[in-house]
Amino acid sequence: MSDAKLQAVLSSLPQGTRQLDALPSNGPAPDKSFVKLNTNENPFPLPPIIMQSAVAALNRQYLYPDDDNISLREAASSTYGVSTDQVIAGNGSSELLGLIYRAFLAPGDKVAMISPGFSFNRKLAMLHGAEFLEIGCQTHSLPMEQLLSGPAKDAKFILVANPNNPTGTFLSISNIERLVAQSDRLVVLDEAYVDFAPDHGLRLINRYSNLLILRTFSKSYAAAGIRVGFGFGHPEIIGRLRNIQNVFNMNVIGHAVGISVLAHRGAYAENHKHIRHERQRVTAALSQLGFSVTPSHANFLLARVPAGQDGSWWQAALERQKILVAYFPDNGLEHCIRVSIGTKEQLDAFLAAARDIVGSLNIPGTTGRGASGSARSVR
Amino acid sequence: MSDAKLQAVLSSLPQGTRQLDALPSNGPAPDKSFVKLNTNENPFPLPPIIMQSAVAALNRQYLYPDDDNISLREAASSTYGVSTDQVIAGNGSSELLGLIYRAFLAPGDKVAMISPGFSFNRKLAMLHGAEFLEIGCQTHSLPMEQLLSGPAKDAKFILVANPNNPTGTFLSISNIERLVAQSDRLVVLDEAYVDFAPDHGLRLINRYSNLLILRTFSKSYAAAGIRVGFGFGHPEIIGRLRNIQNVFNMNVIGHAVGISVLAHRGAYAENHKHIRHERQRVTAALSQLGFSVTPSHANFLLARVPAGQDGSWWQAALERQKILVAYFPDNGLEHCIRVSIGTKEQLDAFLAAARDIVGSLNIPGTTGRGASGSARSVR
Repeated sequence: MSDAKLQAVLSSLPQGTRQLDALPSNGPAPDKSFVKLNTNENPFPLPPIIMQSAVAALNRQYLYPDDDNISLREAASSTYGVSTDQVIAGNGSSELLGLIYRAFLAPGDKVAMISPGFSFNRKLAMLHGAEFLEIGCQTHSLPMEQLLSGPAKDAKFILVANPNNPTGTFLSISNIERLVAQSDRLVVLDEAYVDFAPDHGLRLINRYSNLLILRTFSKSYAAAGIRVGFGFGHPEIIGRLRNIQNVFNMNVIGHAVGISVLAHRGAYAENHKHIRHERQRVTAALSQLGFSVTPSHANFLLARVPAGQDGSWWQAALERQKILVAYFPDNGLEHCIRVSIGTKEQLDAFLAAARDIVGSLNIPGTTGRGASGSARSVR
Repeated sequence: MSDAKLQAVLSSLPQGTRQLDALPSNGPAPDKSFVKLNTNENPFPLPPIIMQSAVAALNRQYLYPDDDNISLREAASSTYGVSTDQVIAGNGSSELLGLIYRAFLAPGDKVAMISPGFSFNRKLAMLHGAEFLEIGCQTHSLPMEQLLSGPAKDAKFILVANPNNPTGTFLSISNIERLVAQSDRLVVLDEAYVDFAPDHGLRLINRYSNLLILRTFSKSYAAAGIRVGFGFGHPEIIGRLRNIQNVFNMNVIGHAVGISVLAHRGAYAENHKHIRHERQRVTAALSQLGFSVTPSHANFLLARVPAGQDGSWWQAALERQKILVAYFPDNGLEHCIRVSIGTKEQLDAFLAAARDIVGSLNIPGTTGRGASGSARSVR
């Protein structure tokens, strides 16, 4: 094989395609016997009525899916009270995030994110050769001055997740509205976890042309494996994104599940009640064990581990007991782990393992009798 | 809503996002009562054993799919006798085509395609602001001189589909190998229809670093609605493409169907036999009606319509009888229609409609008695 020829071909590729050599992990899928609390999936199967729609869709799988996701976008339009041309449908909201980066960023451009935030954005910015500005947000309100007159004022867009990931904290919609109203930047509001929160920002969509809202069915609607996400925004912006989207980006099962979820959101009432209940129970139990848990409005908990070890140590110790949790090595989260709200059985297994580990550490006052029991924010 | 703000946001978007305003059709899905012979789907349901895998996958839909499509890529590696890092898996081969354009083309770059070819490529080139060179191929061998020393010698890549779409013609693999060996350009060989053809190019993949082969399960494996495609190439090129691919680009049903098809390709023997048989039957029947049919190695026929009307007129006349066929307004195909090989019932309906129309045209010698019955190529 001619190496010179290979180099000639590779030389056409921009830097961005090389920077992320580490991105595809290529690692083996996790052993199914692990308790998986590291990626915030909803642990329950699809409601039977939605499963039926999915199976029915398999019978027309030999035909190409709807062009431009039209049936799914019409269903979302009617459920969310927006027009069809204000909706783009994605193969998960991650496809839509990628599309926004691709559309708006040229190498050297700036993008800003409220930090700590969803680390996937840092990778996307790198991929596009963009400068990634992390704007720290330590309180329950946005740092307006930094966003309006600091370096972020030149960003092509500002990313705000609400509830935020990995913290689980929630900003009031009026706070977000203030940013959207005062900034002339595009504000990308990622509402992946919004169904576990007290309010949402969709009612702002007709008032501001610089607001783009992302939703996903991976968390609250238990469809992470199906890949269904939406973007809502001004028709002209949505149209531009649809123009550069892959044709047939979603398959017929994605369409069928998406449409069926939209028609049967009530079928998730018990599911969401469970998550809220377990979120409260595990927050209390972890606090008793010496963790400091950030009050969460999502389906996960960010917990500062008891003194003595860091989050990475805890992640490894739990993994030895076949429990997977998430760890974030930067943004001041080095002493935290993030735990998804799974089933009661999964969370009991997690709490038992955590109790074991705390016991083995022999930390005074943290062996389950609640000495440091009050929840406090890590931010 | 502030129009100035909207203009500020839109001003960040490159020209490419606007050029294609006409691309998303947004039209209604075709009425299910139509006989759909316009997009080359395979008209049969998935074999039962593959359907079972798909239904089983629905039970783990609440978890994210495999990272980097690893299980599917491993299955393809083992079926096709290449290494896993020579395989990229796509949400249909259309995602992979889009990825190749995105990776290799900057505005002003050139891309070359053997013409007539798959018109989707022209749209992709436009989207990336690239110059699209159509290199006419009128015989059964590639125009080497034009490809090696003409304008195409500066193209970032050269697209060859084999069998070709929309003609259905087939180039010998030795002819394609000659191009790959003599050119230092990347050759993208689209083998979407290869399972209906006498040979394939995959055995060249370890010999040439400038060859990238695309396959899809939309045609021969009846999974257009599921979206499964593959790219095969040099690990360094495949790795660069994987680096810029969306995470979780395929859903769990795509993975399950893909893996199951790879394990049960034999289950399609009857399906493929049917398509070859009907292809021959309809070729003969159309020839008797006064059409000139290009001998096809794919699951469709390109047919030059009887003298007197053009392809567009025929497409409309057939549509009035609820039969959908494809029409191509350029590249010398103005007097042709393309007809997918559907079920026997669909093709009988098409032939009956065609016979009616020919009868109504009252063309001497073309009313079914075979006056101009010999098939000849339109190219």
